Amino acid sequence: MAVYTPVTDEDLASFLTGYDIGSLTSFSGIAEGVENSNFLVRTTGGTYILTLYEKRVNPDELPFFINLMTHLASRGLSCPQPVAARDGAMLRELNGRPAAIVTFLEGVWRRRIHPACCHALGAAMAELHLAGLGFGMRRENNLSVSAWRPLLESCDMRSEPIYHGLYNGLKVEVGYLEDNWPVDLPTGVIHADLFPDNVFFLGDHVSGLIDFYFACTDTLVYDLAICLNAWCFETDGSFNVTKAQQLIAGYQTRRALSVEERHALPVLARGSALRFMLTRLYDWLNHPEGALVKPKDPMEYLQKLRFHQTVVHPSAYGL
Amino acid sequence: MAVYTPVTDEDLASFLTGYDIGSLTSFSGIAEGVENSNFLVRTTGGTYILTLYEKRVNPDELPFFINLMTHLASRGLSCPQPVAARDGAMLRELNGRPAAIVTFLEGVWRRRIHPACCHALGAAMAELHLAGLGFGMRRENNLSVSAWRPLLESCDMRSEPIYHGLYNGLKVEVGYLEDNWPVDLPTGVIHADLFPDNVFFLGDHVSGLIDFYFACTDTLVYDLAICLNAWCFETDGSFNVTKAQQLIAGYQTRRALSVEERHALPVLARGSALRFMLTRLYDWLNHPEGALVKPKDPMEYLQKLRFHQTVVHPSAYGL
Repeated sequence: MAVYTPVTDEDLASFLTGYDIGSLTSFSGIAEGVENSNFLVRTTGGTYILTLYEKRVNPDELPFFINLMTHLASRGLSCPQPVAARDGAMLRELNGRPAAIVTFLEGVWRRRIHPACCHALGAAMAELHLAGLGFGMRRENNLSVSAWRPLLESCDMRSEPIYHGLYNGLKVEVGYLEDNWPVDLPTGVIHADLFPDNVFFLGDHVSGLIDFYFACTDTLVYDLAICLNAWCFETDGSFNVTKAQQLIAGYQTRRALSVEERHALPVLARGSALRFMLTRLYDWLNHPEGALVKPKDPMEYLQKLRFHQTVVHPSAYGL
Repeated sequence: MAVYTPVTDEDLASFLTGYDIGSLTSFSGIAEGVENSNFLVRTTGGTYILTLYEKRVNPDELPFFINLMTHLASRGLSCPQPVAARDGAMLRELNGRPAAIVTFLEGVWRRRIHPACCHALGAAMAELHLAGLGFGMRRENNLSVSAWRPLLESCDMRSEPIYHGLYNGLKVEVGYLEDNWPVDLPTGVIHADLFPDNVFFLGDHVSGLIDFYFACTDTLVYDLAICLNAWCFETDGSFNVTKAQQLIAGYQTRRALSVEERHALPVLARGSALRFMLTRLYDWLNHPEGALVKPKDPMEYLQKLRFHQTVVHPSAYGL
């Protein structure tokens, strides 16, 4: 569940008087999501999402995310649009947490991925990358290649003999990625977390992208590598090359990949698999007893990493 | 949180084809609530609540609840109105659970209770009682006086010496209530769980009553006794007689209490306090490790029981 900070009717009604969006008629906590507290808020003026930013979000980075969503929405991308309060502020405080109101997007995320979803996703991702051009702020990707060695060390796997083999294998992989990580590819705003639950569909069309709280300035095609992992494997662990081909083809309907970008896909896919493997492993080894959110399985991403380690040419992804 | 049974977009879209309410545009799990899985569902036709009934609800009793809400709504009471599928059924199945779609009610529940809320609640409760007249089905209150002795015994307090004093005190109370429980007062449909989170307000008006899954055929004024406990104590445990007076006065704007009903209030309030004490105690002693829902504090209701044990006349409630 994803309501860590309770909000009362009086707190919320009072908070809403700071906005020009009507008065509160209904609100409920949203059960989905793991990072922040989200509420569906209905007012006499419409439907909105209220987010209270919890401790995993660095408050100093919130202006980047808020301004990015505003920029992308102004470029016609369908994403949550932060609503300015009467005083112009888009970030305010509620119950001791930074808080924002954003517009509500219609759409449902796809639990079962069809190849056509991947094509639509690819196109939407390229539109995001194009809409992000000209955005004036930068945010480093603090979960990219330079973060992986310290992240691996922080997992404290050496004290447990059963983890020694895994630890040594991951250490070799980190070294390989440090030595081979591409540095000269086109960069810009990437979403960096475009998992299925962050992509809304109405029918076969993408109706909106949400949850920009990992967005950063990084190699554009890395977003595609993340989605090769998040969208193109079946639940039995097998790689579905048709979905990968559709994803990349959809992307290229809006933005063509250069030869260098295509050839970087295998190493970027390895890096992306390692990134989610390591953060999940960290959460697995460090999640508190009785936590509200069940940690995700890191081994799913180890299996994906092993697949990409066997890839020698981007044709393995249908290119 | 309150999503025990996950629902996918495809399951739900397919389920909705059985109804004439448009096609799915959005849905999210509702974090509040403890008994069933609830989803806020938006379609091209409107906004609805989808409920999947979980294991604490007896499927054989669902027709009572569904027909009751339909009856009450037809009498003008603002409550969730079950939506009939194309085949006329109001109860169907989704993901192996009995499931129903009901209309969405605007309103927010009051975290802080003002005396005016109690007056409005009393009036709404009396309207519920009047609207329930003529409802053709019966359901015994399986959490009333005859259930308390077996419930107390099932709590298995005798094995723990620290519970012996509490156990003996409760056993005496059960005996007192069995001997003094009123049997000749007017009966009808009662809600039996009108806690603040089941009463929606817009401004100072009650906009709707929800969660009829404890509703039953019982002494009408017992509903009032339940609300004396649920609405009229402060968080420090003190009894707010103004709120009680407003609750009863609000009730009597719609339905006058007889002398016998008024005089039964103290014993009914004791019984109601014991009922919630015992079910909470049972959940407290029996909740599984890592349960999604934190059990509520039974001692809050022990304190309320002790207050009512000192009451010798209904004037203590502002009458």
